[in-house]
Amino acid sequence: MNPTRIKLGIIGGGQLSRMMAFEAQKMGIYIEALDPDPKCPASYVANSLIVSDFYNEEHLAKIFHNNDFITYDIEHINAEALKKLYDKEPKIFPSPYILEQIQDKLLQKKIFERAKVPAPAYRKLDKNEIENFESDIYPVVQKSRKGGYDGRGVFVLKSPADKANMLKTDSLIEEYIDFEKELAIMAARDKEGNIKLYPVVEMIFDDRVNICDITSAPARVSEKVVKEVNSIAEAIVENLDGVGIFGIELFLTGDEKVYVNEIAPRPHNSGHYTIEACKTSQFEQHIRAVCGLPLGSADLVIPAVMANILGDESHTGKPLITGLKEALQIEGLYFHYYCKSSTKPFRKMGHITVVDNSVDSAFKKVSQAKNIIKVISEK
Amino acid sequence: MNPTRIKLGIIGGGQLSRMMAFEAQKMGIYIEALDPDPKCPASYVANSLIVSDFYNEEHLAKIFHNNDFITYDIEHINAEALKKLYDKEPKIFPSPYILEQIQDKLLQKKIFERAKVPAPAYRKLDKNEIENFESDIYPVVQKSRKGGYDGRGVFVLKSPADKANMLKTDSLIEEYIDFEKELAIMAARDKEGNIKLYPVVEMIFDDRVNICDITSAPARVSEKVVKEVNSIAEAIVENLDGVGIFGIELFLTGDEKVYVNEIAPRPHNSGHYTIEACKTSQFEQHIRAVCGLPLGSADLVIPAVMANILGDESHTGKPLITGLKEALQIEGLYFHYYCKSSTKPFRKMGHITVVDNSVDSAFKKVSQAKNIIKVISEK
Repeated sequence: MNPTRIKLGIIGGGQLSRMMAFEAQKMGIYIEALDPDPKCPASYVANSLIVSDFYNEEHLAKIFHNNDFITYDIEHINAEALKKLYDKEPKIFPSPYILEQIQDKLLQKKIFERAKVPAPAYRKLDKNEIENFESDIYPVVQKSRKGGYDGRGVFVLKSPADKANMLKTDSLIEEYIDFEKELAIMAARDKEGNIKLYPVVEMIFDDRVNICDITSAPARVSEKVVKEVNSIAEAIVENLDGVGIFGIELFLTGDEKVYVNEIAPRPHNSGHYTIEACKTSQFEQHIRAVCGLPLGSADLVIPAVMANILGDESHTGKPLITGLKEALQIEGLYFHYYCKSSTKPFRKMGHITVVDNSVDSAFKKVSQAKNIIKVISEK
Repeated sequence: MNPTRIKLGIIGGGQLSRMMAFEAQKMGIYIEALDPDPKCPASYVANSLIVSDFYNEEHLAKIFHNNDFITYDIEHINAEALKKLYDKEPKIFPSPYILEQIQDKLLQKKIFERAKVPAPAYRKLDKNEIENFESDIYPVVQKSRKGGYDGRGVFVLKSPADKANMLKTDSLIEEYIDFEKELAIMAARDKEGNIKLYPVVEMIFDDRVNICDITSAPARVSEKVVKEVNSIAEAIVENLDGVGIFGIELFLTGDEKVYVNEIAPRPHNSGHYTIEACKTSQFEQHIRAVCGLPLGSADLVIPAVMANILGDESHTGKPLITGLKEALQIEGLYFHYYCKSSTKPFRKMGHITVVDNSVDSAFKKVSQAKNIIKVISEK
């Protein structure tokens, strides 16, 4: 380890990397990010930036050798190259062997099986089998094995007629869960195997683009459901021998059955509320775990509701924030902006978090603010 | 105002500027700092840096013209030049007319008189009068009118024998208050005149160097004292017509009398605890006020104790943090590092904040951590 200050390399320079960099900088940890965009969100906060795509082995080796520890803010990176580097020196967290299981939704299902946690039933459907696809029941869900993100790579077949629009890629066919709520939990695990679980939260999606839009913390669910989600989260991160923070998304049905949907080996949109509402933010927690530092408390200090600020659907170009002054008049509202160089419809441009005495009142304020604050483009 | 994102210039690039820059960046506010040191703490977080001393009129004009608003993290800057710029366009907050009153401790006393708040009795003592100085009572306090900072510029005369060691500068001679506690409060005021008061806190000083060492929030004082401090703080910021955050330091005597000691027109060491413990940190609050945005809630969410991490007294040179891993094992402890390029005895290198259910338990944890975490120099 660097004698003076820890050096952390982050593959990916998006908003998650940016928010990690803030927390790392706060603690005096040196940050080097790697991203194809020299003006990526993390570029304004990192100490240095390697401009590179996520598959360039030379550049991945460079960030690996420059830093004491390596993490990433995106799954779609060269896990093969990282595995080779990890074999030389195991300083990439979560390990690339975990990453490669998460990159492929079929291998993710195997994680759930090994951890003995409930997940929707599934079967494999290779690209060449799609033409002859048949199902006895509808709806069913087709999920691309690789490359899905923010709603991309998921297709719901409501009837045989939808077959023509199926994704033309190696896939899973998954049981459709008629859920009442979508839940999420952030679970952190350190190198000694200590686990800290954040509160269970509710995710509310923007149906237009299937992007997690609003998170309410804590979730309005029974104690029984909380316990069930906690034990699922623990089983998964323990089974993975994971180091770092993991975002775990779940379905909750009307009869209180819980199913794991998918997991992410990094800070997660559904954990942004932790910045204001928990003792230790998900970003600091991840950095602590990755850098071999002890985990902080994951306690909720105050209820919170977070909403993404998506690029306005009729604007593309250089971004312009409107309504900020008016929105900040709402008591308990905090604004985060990612400094992306251009906006486009539904792009995640920032987020707001409202802390309040109850989730319900915070929810009202967030809904109000979402109508006020917009990211449009300059004329 | 910049159509896309607000631009804020900060004169000074020390730790206060650095922590302002974090909060500004979070909200998407563009930060330009001005500091003589190209490797100052803010340099790693600001979007741009003007390397300049604080008196260069050309460079002050440059930062003024480059940005929508201007603030500062240090009082020892060219108020005359800033007044001329302010007269062209009043976009410097707190206004340089307030700054010049605060720069001179004699003029500060006039603020307290105008605001009708209790402060220690004083008389003026010019440099040329020092040779013939006499006092009927001891101890008395000599304060340099200008340039004092972190305990410099203050001298306590315990007896006539101390006369030989008096500061050779234009001064005040001030009544010595036999205080039981030193208190502080952060008061924020926006352009519409709205005021938000943070909790009253206790400051505990390191006697070796007279640097505020530990802050406990809230202060362990009666409701009567809290009310008195609140009304003093309100009277001062209103009387100043101040915009921004002000740190107000006070003395509390055994019989619950409160006296204002001095004020700072900026975030203050005694307000660092607000990052973890209050809904809105003092840094975000200051930026909101200066940039014409509405103030956030100043509510305390959880008790906290903050301690400075000073450079170890026997080390000078390239800094090395030791004990961080061990210290972070303390539940509720958060570490902030300022990334100064060199350490020296008693230099403010970082701080820790412990949040806990009570100030007393947080205090114990902070005391424990101060013995663990050190900033020394590399061999």
